[in-house]
Amino acid sequence: MALALSLSRQAIGLSDPNPRVGCVITDRAGRLLGAGHTQQAGGPHAEVMALRDARARGHDEAALAGAQVYVTLEPCAHHGRTPPCCEALAAAKVGRVHLALLDPNPLVAGKGRAHLEAAGIACELGLGAAEAREINIGFLSRMVRGRPHVRMKIAASLDGRTALPDGRSQWITGPGAREDGQWWRQRAGAILTGLGTVRDDDPRLDLRLPGIESPPLQPLRVIADSRLQTPATARILQSPGKVLLIHAGATSTTPWPEGVETLALPVGHPGDPRTGHPGDQPACHPGGQAPEPKVDLPALLAELGRRGINELHVEAGATLNGALLKAGLVDELLIYLAPALLGEGRGMAALGLLPELTAAPRFEWLETALVDGDLRLRLRRASLGY
Amino acid sequence: MALALSLSRQAIGLSDPNPRVGCVITDRAGRLLGAGHTQQAGGPHAEVMALRDARARGHDEAALAGAQVYVTLEPCAHHGRTPPCCEALAAAKVGRVHLALLDPNPLVAGKGRAHLEAAGIACELGLGAAEAREINIGFLSRMVRGRPHVRMKIAASLDGRTALPDGRSQWITGPGAREDGQWWRQRAGAILTGLGTVRDDDPRLDLRLPGIESPPLQPLRVIADSRLQTPATARILQSPGKVLLIHAGATSTTPWPEGVETLALPVGHPGDPRTGHPGDQPACHPGGQAPEPKVDLPALLAELGRRGINELHVEAGATLNGALLKAGLVDELLIYLAPALLGEGRGMAALGLLPELTAAPRFEWLETALVDGDLRLRLRRASLGY
Ligand SMILES: NC(=O)c1ccc[n+]([C@@H]2O[C@H](COP(=O)([O-])OP(=O)(O)OC[C@H]3O[C@@H](n4cnc5c(N)ncnc54)[C@H](OP(=O)(O)O)[C@@H]3O)[C@@H](O)[C@H]2O)c1
Ligand SMILES: NC(=O)c1ccc[n+]([C@@H]2O[C@H](COP(=O)([O-])OP(=O)(O)OC[C@H]3O[C@@H](n4cnc5c(N)ncnc54)[C@H](OP(=O)(O)O)[C@@H]3O)[C@@H](O)[C@H]2O)c1
Repeated sequence: MALALSLSRQAIGLSDPNPRVGCVITDRAGRLLGAGHTQQAGGPHAEVMALRDARARGHDEAALAGAQVYVTLEPCAHHGRTPPCCEALAAAKVGRVHLALLDPNPLVAGKGRAHLEAAGIACELGLGAAEAREINIGFLSRMVRGRPHVRMKIAASLDGRTALPDGRSQWITGPGAREDGQWWRQRAGAILTGLGTVRDDDPRLDLRLPGIESPPLQPLRVIADSRLQTPATARILQSPGKVLLIHAGATSTTPWPEGVETLALPVGHPGDPRTGHPGDQPACHPGGQAPEPKVDLPALLAELGRRGINELHVEAGATLNGALLKAGLVDELLIYLAPALLGEGRGMAALGLLPELTAAPRFEWLETALVDGDLRLRLRRASLGY
Repeated sequence: MALALSLSRQAIGLSDPNPRVGCVITDRAGRLLGAGHTQQAGGPHAEVMALRDARARGHDEAALAGAQVYVTLEPCAHHGRTPPCCEALAAAKVGRVHLALLDPNPLVAGKGRAHLEAAGIACELGLGAAEAREINIGFLSRMVRGRPHVRMKIAASLDGRTALPDGRSQWITGPGAREDGQWWRQRAGAILTGLGTVRDDDPRLDLRLPGIESPPLQPLRVIADSRLQTPATARILQSPGKVLLIHAGATSTTPWPEGVETLALPVGHPGDPRTGHPGDQPACHPGGQAPEPKVDLPALLAELGRRGINELHVEAGATLNGALLKAGLVDELLIYLAPALLGEGRGMAALGLLPELTAAPRFEWLETALVDGDLRLRLRRASLGY
C-alpha cells in the first residue's frame, strides 16, 4: 500500500478532476506483478494501468488469478469515460483487494466494493486511509460538499505583516518558500486572487515548477473582480492558460484576451451574510444609494465545484482573505513565516472589528516545517467532515 | 554527564546569580558514588555537593581516589563566598574530570582546569557542551558582555496581533502557554516591562509556578517608566518582592511601597541612537522645547548585568518591544501563537516605518513546539558570541 500511495502522488497535477489513485498488484508471496496510477482525465485509471503493467511484464492470466491488489481508493463501478475498474479486476479474477478509502462519489460509494465482493473477491478496507485522504482531500471535499477544499496561502513576517505599509513585499520569505508554494499550487485545480493583488503585484499566478518545462495541467486562475476592473494588459490575462473573471453583474467593453471568461455571480444584497464582506454594509445607505455589489463567495465555490475543481489555492490580499475567513469558507491555512519582524505593514486578513476574541476564525495545527529559512505552518478547520 | 546536566537544571530558579552546575562522581566502572548541583548563592557549589553526597553514602577517600568526575562547567578556582572547587577535587585526588564547558568568568577562565592539571588530574573538555551552554546562556552572556541574555516573550494570534484594538487580550493564548511562560520567567533573574503594560493590564509579573508554594527566588521586576508615572497602587508594586523603577531623571513625590527602588538612567539626548526609541525625534523641536527624555536601554541592561542578572525576561507591549528590537538588544524571541486570526489589533512591536524590508530585525529559528493548543516559537539572534 505504501508503494500504491507513493504512485498516487504521481497523479498530482495530472489526473484532475479525477482522484489521485495508485494501484499495486502482487502475487501471494508479495512479489510485485504490476503497478500504476491514474492518468490524465479520460485516460486509464490506476487499476487498469497496473493490470496492463503486469501483462507487459509477462504475467499471464494464471499469474494474476488469486493476486493481491492494493488500491488507494475504491475502484470505480460506473461507466464514465473509461469502463469500470472493478469489472477489470473481477475479469482478471484477482484474489483479494485492499482498499485504503471508499469513494464518496455518489456514483461509486460502496458499489465498487459490492461489485467485487459479488464476484467473489474479498475486500479489505482501511490500510493507508489517512494518507490516501490527504492526497485526495480536494476530491473528497468536492464529492461530499460539491465544492473544493480551500487552502489559503499567506507569506508573512513573524509579526503577521504581508507587506510594508506602501505595499512592498518582494520578498518577505525566501526562495525555498516560494518554490514550496509552487508545489502547493500544483495540487490545485484553480488559484483564486482578488483585484487588489492583480493591481498591486501584477502576478501571473501560473505554475512554474523547477525542472518541469510545461506541466501537463495549468490551474485555472480565478479573479474576484466585482466591477470587472482588471486591466486587459494585466500579466495574469496576458500569460497562457485560462482565466475566469468573476464579477458582480458589471458590464465591460474591455476586449478580453483569449482564454479569459467572465461570469456574473453577484450577491443577493450587500448585507447578505453569505458575502462575508468586511464592513457588512447595511442594505440601504443614508444617501439612498445602494453599495456596490460584491462577488458571492459561496456561489463562486459552488461554481468551481461544478467545474471539477478539487483543491482551490487562494493567493490574495487581506481584503479577499478576510472576506473568505469571515464567511467560514477557508478549510486550510498554508502560512510561511519569515524569521523577521516588520512592525508596521499590511495584515494577513481584514476581518473588521471583532466583537470579542472568541469571534476570531480558529483552526487546528496540522504541521510545522522549516522550508529554507522560513517556517511553514499548516492549519485546518476543525472537523472538516470529509 | 547526562545526569550532571539534568541535575544542573535543578539549580534553575535557585542558584542565580551563580551558574547552574551539576556534578556526578563515579568509580572507574561507572558506578555512581555521589552527585549534586549548585545551591543558593553563598551555598556550596555542585562539586562540593557531589563530594559530600559521596561521603554521606559511605564512600571513603580510597573510593574517591581515582574517581571520574562529570561537571557541567569548569570548577571555580577563586575564593568567593565558598572555597575554590578545584581545590576540593584536587584534595580528594579524583582521577579524571570531564568538563562540559570552560567558565568564561574572567576570575576562572581556564584557571580551574589549569589548577586540576597541575595537581595531576586529567581534564577532558566538551562532553555535553551544547546543553550546558543552553542552561547557562544567561550566565555566559553576563560574563562575556557584562549584560543579561535578553529573551522577549510575546503571546499573539497567528496574524501577529497581541490584543484587539481596544486592548482586550485576555486570553489570546491558552492556559498551557501561560503556564509554560511561568517556567521561562523562573529562568530569569529579572522581568522587564513598560509603563504601558502596567497601566493597561496591571499585572503582578511575579512567579506563580504550579505546585510550588513559594519559589526560592522571585525575579526582580523592572519597569521602564521615564517620567515615574507608575501608580503607587499598581499591583506590581503592591505584591511582595522587589521592583526597580527605571526613569529618565524624573522627580516624583509618590510614597513608593516597600521593596520599590527608583533609578535614573536617562538617555544623553533623545535623538541618541542608543535609545532605540521609535520615532527617533530630532534633538530640537520646532517649538524649541526638548522632547521628553527616555530610559537609556543599553544602560539599563548594563545596570542589570552589574546586579547579577543573567537572563532578562521581557514582557512588554509593542512600544518597549519595538525600542529594544530597534536597538538590537533582543537576543531571543519566545513567541506563543494561537491558532486564530484577529485581523485588526495591536502588533508585536512598533518599529516605526522601515526604510526597506532588509531593515527588519532578523532572527534564526531555534525550536518550535506545540504547547497545549498554541505553537511556541523560539528564535535567536545570529551568532550570539557566547
Ligand atoms: N503575502 C502574501 O501571501 C500575499 C499574497 C497575495 C497578495 N498579497 C498582497 O496583498 C495586497 C493586495 O491586497 P488587497 O486586499 O488590496 O487585494 P485582494 O484581497 O487581493 O483583492 C481584494 C478585492 O477583491 C475584490 N472582491 C470581489 N468580491 C469580493 C468579496 N466578496 N469580498 C472581498 N473582496 C472582493 C474587491 O474588489 P472589487 O470590489 O472591485 O471587486 C476587493 O477590493 C498586495 O499588496 C499584495 O502584495 C500578499
Ligand atoms: N501579548 C503579549 O505578550 C503582551 C505582553 C505584555 C503587554 N502586552 C500588551 O501591551 C499593551 C501595552 O503596550 P504599550 O506599547 O502601550 O506599553 P509598553 O511597551 O509595555 O510600555 C511602553 C512605555 O515604556 C516607556 N519607556 C521608557 N523608556 C522607553 C524607551 N527607551 N523606549 C520605549 N519606551 C520606553 C514609555 O513610557 P514613558 O515614556 O512614559 O516612559 C512607553 O510608553 C497592553 O495592551 C498589553 O496587554 C502584551
